Amino acid sequence: MGSKPMAKLVVLYKHPPDPVAFERYYFSTHVPIARKVPGLKNFEVSNGPIVSPQGTPYFFAVFMSFDSMSALDAGMRSPEGAAAAADVANFAPAGADVLIVDTKSV
Amino acid sequence: MGSKPMAKLVVLYKHPPDPVAFERYYFSTHVPIARKVPGLKNFEVSNGPIVSPQGTPYFFAVFMSFDSMSALDAGMRSPEGAAAAADVANFAPAGADVLIVDTKSV
Repeated sequence: MGSKPMAKLVVLYKHPPDPVAFERYYFSTHVPIARKVPGLKNFEVSNGPIVSPQGTPYFFAVFMSFDSMSALDAGMRSPEGAAAAADVANFAPAGADVLIVDTKSV
Repeated sequence: MGSKPMAKLVVLYKHPPDPVAFERYYFSTHVPIARKVPGLKNFEVSNGPIVSPQGTPYFFAVFMSFDSMSALDAGMRSPEGAAAAADVANFAPAGADVLIVDTKSV
């Protein structure tokens, strides 16, 4: 079933003080920066609210996929990866939790 | 770039008291139950430890993808979806956080 498993960088942004400003910056400025990360194969973001049965501190989710954990590591250690990581402070004062996950299909 | 965006059910399991027993049950018993959820198109799980720059309470991550949020809802409301949700109590005493996320590619 489905697509091939990939290494994922999951970024879970907490509720920002100004959601409209967050989304405006994210799509107009952060996406063009983050798209330059070498080895990035798939870049998906949440579309609409994150629903959680327990409630969640998270406002916005990002799934960046790479062919392997070594490709993910190399991408994030590159100048483009460092630029993307550094840009987060410019629009996400509430912070984000990052999960780096290698996956397999079951 | 990449595959089509999908609605995702993300399940983030917290560190279990007995990781070996958790994984044994998960793969031998829970996966066969969860694979029966109608509309499930892609079923990926973490392969190896979850890495987080901040540290994380999560031990194991699951990404179940559906064609749409309505397909995800219907799948989880089905008898098979209810059986999969009910089974979690059998192997995850430490609990799990669930995030339901519609996605788009950027």
